[in-house]
Amino acid sequence: MSNYLVEYTLHLADNALILGHRNSEWCGHGPVLEQDIAITNISLDLIGQARNFYQYAAKLINESPAPLSPAHAGWRGGEVTEDILAYLRDVREFKNCLLVEQTNGDWAKTILRQFFFSAYQYYLYLPLQNSRDEQLAAIAEKALKEVTYHLRWSSEWVIRLGDGTEESHQRMLNAIDELWMYTGELFQAASFELQAVGEGIGVELSLIESQWKEKVKEIFFEATLPVPEKVYMQTGGKEGKHTEYLGFILAELQFMQRAYPGSEW
Amino acid sequence: MSNYLVEYTLHLADNALILGHRNSEWCGHGPVLEQDIAITNISLDLIGQARNFYQYAAKLINESPAPLSPAHAGWRGGEVTEDILAYLRDVREFKNCLLVEQTNGDWAKTILRQFFFSAYQYYLYLPLQNSRDEQLAAIAEKALKEVTYHLRWSSEWVIRLGDGTEESHQRMLNAIDELWMYTGELFQAASFELQAVGEGIGVELSLIESQWKEKVKEIFFEATLPVPEKVYMQTGGKEGKHTEYLGFILAELQFMQRAYPGSEW
Repeated sequence: MSNYLVEYTLHLADNALILGHRNSEWCGHGPVLEQDIAITNISLDLIGQARNFYQYAAKLINESPAPLSPAHAGWRGGEVTEDILAYLRDVREFKNCLLVEQTNGDWAKTILRQFFFSAYQYYLYLPLQNSRDEQLAAIAEKALKEVTYHLRWSSEWVIRLGDGTEESHQRMLNAIDELWMYTGELFQAASFELQAVGEGIGVELSLIESQWKEKVKEIFFEATLPVPEKVYMQTGGKEGKHTEYLGFILAELQFMQRAYPGSEW
Repeated sequence: MSNYLVEYTLHLADNALILGHRNSEWCGHGPVLEQDIAITNISLDLIGQARNFYQYAAKLINESPAPLSPAHAGWRGGEVTEDILAYLRDVREFKNCLLVEQTNGDWAKTILRQFFFSAYQYYLYLPLQNSRDEQLAAIAEKALKEVTYHLRWSSEWVIRLGDGTEESHQRMLNAIDELWMYTGELFQAASFELQAVGEGIGVELSLIESQWKEKVKEIFFEATLPVPEKVYMQTGGKEGKHTEYLGFILAELQFMQRAYPGSEW
């Protein structure tokens, strides 16, 4: 696929879909009913954002004069839909960051993953509202209310667990150990991001990075948690090089469309 | 599907495939290299048995004058293969016992599941060698050597863990708690088993049951483990009513054929 705008849009969509799916695995298993419902609502918000981005990506692909990749030519009748983009691409075509595909682990890990990602999304969507691409700007504006809530909710939980009991503090430390290495990728631009920035469509990641780090510092301070330093950062997700987990996620996520092609609600 | 012989054969195949798949999840994660290799070899044995049964079932289906079920008519070109039977049937068509689809849990649970199943398979295949159906008899005879080893290996592990440390004993007790309720189904005949017995092809399950119970008693005695009594038994697997786990197993197991139909090694 050579169209940076399609790739940029799919990247935004994949991030939201995969984290939405991961969170949905908690449905019915949350520690208390209120939080079970909260994390499930966050899932629904994220999957809703993913749909908006996928619909836009499908439109861009369908309106492009030539197939954007060999794979696309093979999709049913050539007409691409949001469902095809979500359910019929394989691992190497997914452009989500490694962070969102990591396992749920315990509640502390799920919370920390959400906090890292929501802070990232918040500082990304804020300036994306001014993108030269009106459609992306509109989706970002619509999503920002949700993300603002996700960030507040997850921040409060980070503080509650970090500054809670000895056990909850230890679990947060473990979660930091397991997840910090995946935060660097959020701010390392893929080629489609560089192009999108060049065209006034995408957001400069170094701007987000400093705001993100400030936010993490602030919340971790309140939570009595240490901010790690000098950790080797894992990358590759945006270019389709994923951890072993994404394959298992897609196997489950895509089963219905793969087993019953074209099925609808 | 109305042909009891096809169903009986698929039942034998599905049991072997699903337990083989479950065991294969240990590959590279076993507690020590020797046992990692042992459980992986058991997986390969079971998947080999499954292949033999699937090949025979495919032959029976292809040679039957009319499609045996509406689903079959839809399979590629009408010609059924072992791969189609393993990779393109959905949950409700699988006839394996609930026992084999249960999660691996810890090593104790995996060992106990293997012991329960290998003892069952051993006492099943012994008389199946004399089945009026020559193909089933031949497969049973060929598999019996493997199953004899599986039974010895898993029996030794049950004893080692049950009569081991306090922790290993406790883990075996937990495993019994989690698995015993799925053992009753092994001896509760489905309609295709009753028909197969009536035709001199299948094995009378009450015969297996008494031998199986004797074996469990003997090994549990050595392992200083209690034989549970009066436990409510879960059933349904043979009729396609499965626990939540089978769907996840099939999503992973069938991904390649569903995503890349007709792919071969």
